[in-house]
Amino acid sequence: MTLVLGGARSGKSRYAEGLIEAQPGPWLYVATAQGWDDEMRERIAQHRARRPPPWVTADAPRDLPAVIRRAPPGRPVLVDCLTLWLTNVMLDEAADLPAATDALLESCRAAAGPLVLVSNEVGFGIVPENALARRFRDEAGRLHQRLAALADRVVLVVAGLPMILKGDHA
Amino acid sequence: MTLVLGGARSGKSRYAEGLIEAQPGPWLYVATAQGWDDEMRERIAQHRARRPPPWVTADAPRDLPAVIRRAPPGRPVLVDCLTLWLTNVMLDEAADLPAATDALLESCRAAAGPLVLVSNEVGFGIVPENALARRFRDEAGRLHQRLAALADRVVLVVAGLPMILKGDHA
Amino acid sequence: MTLVLGGARSGKSRYAEGLIEAQPGPWLYVATAQGWDDEMRERIAQHRARRPPPWVTADAPRDLPAVIRRAPPGRPVLVDCLTLWLTNVMLDEAADLPAATDALLESCRAAAGPLVLVSNEVGFGIVPENALARRFRDEAGRLHQRLAALADRVVLVVAGLPMILKGDHA
Repeated sequence: MTLVLGGARSGKSRYAEGLIEAQPGPWLYVATAQGWDDEMRERIAQHRARRPPPWVTADAPRDLPAVIRRAPPGRPVLVDCLTLWLTNVMLDEAADLPAATDALLESCRAAAGPLVLVSNEVGFGIVPENALARRFRDEAGRLHQRLAALADRVVLVVAGLPMILKGDHA
Repeated sequence: MTLVLGGARSGKSRYAEGLIEAQPGPWLYVATAQGWDDEMRERIAQHRARRPPPWVTADAPRDLPAVIRRAPPGRPVLVDCLTLWLTNVMLDEAADLPAATDALLESCRAAAGPLVLVSNEVGFGIVPENALARRFRDEAGRLHQRLAALADRVVLVVAGLPMILKGDHA
Repeated sequence: MTLVLGGARSGKSRYAEGLIEAQPGPWLYVATAQGWDDEMRERIAQHRARRPPPWVTADAPRDLPAVIRRAPPGRPVLVDCLTLWLTNVMLDEAADLPAATDALLESCRAAAGPLVLVSNEVGFGIVPENALARRFRDEAGRLHQRLAALADRVVLVVAGLPMILKGDHA
């Protein structure tokens, strides 16, 4: 299991794709984006256009743990990205965030094949004035810490270049 | 002297604690937070709950240099965090920021025992629209540069994992 | 060619200067700032005051590729900073951003002497509420990825300390 962190437009998705494509296919791309508005729908379209077969796509804006659990044994899985999944869960009033993150951690622990999780590092700016943004930033940081403790490798991508935070440099 | 930088909820406080707890106790925890509102008071309570004896706590929302100077010789000291101290000094109209930062640097230079300073790295976002936030970001960056030049070790914590910027990897 | 990234007040300009000053002079400092307001004019004045001869200064708030191309062969060139150049191009309704970034990449590729480019890493915060800020953040990220792929060395400066992302540690 590899956790790939990076800023906006840091090249983290492309780097994570490269990790998966180094494995034998087919590869499962788990998309967590939800097309709330045109800007978001355009980003989703761009991401999909980069992934023709042997990529297979699954959507998991909220049921991410279930989608990871149901992946065929041994299949390489790319989740892009956790930040959007966390946003979707936080905006869903019916959702139970602690239970959802526990389920996510459990599904990662149980994954049989290569699993690469992409997420935005969002904690290096000034404290946001918006209370929801502050809460989101806190939850993202906590989730990253838990996943990083579990992961075999953690990578921070800056300007398309990987910095290895945990695991092998190979 | 060690400077521990990190984003929000990056695990920097926990990492810094580990550095101090590797030394013989008792350990002095210097808290710089001021309970302006419920959100802040809750964070302070969470931080204290993590530090039973042999932790000893001192509050230094503004008189940080004096508290560092008065620590018993050889006692390991953890300051958490500089960002809040800087905020408190900047919001205090009676305070002299250049004199306060000079005094802080001097107290760090004179410290006899292990000293670990925790601070938020806040300069990696978009330029804030708020002028005070911009000024704060500039002052924090300048303070970090001066402390990093003085420190034996500088560590950037991301997702609970340390990246060594200066000093030994041990 | 070296790309120096860093947050606000991270010491990235000073670090980049050191790289250039290790070369035989004179050195060309290419300033991209435009004095829109007092805050900006004060920053420009501070930057210039740090660079007496053998520094030679050229202004390139928009025509950066041309200024890089016209530098005398072999002369060390410091561009500080790309973030402001990108801002100026994005705010100029007559400008063609894709053409301008292609021209910048081409001028860097053709540079005969040592070239050091300084830019702000701005993608590690919460998604900005302002649409222009979001677009700027995306364009800056894309530009950094392209330049990093071309550069011989890429360095991230934190608290005045360099982290080497690409190239030699020497």
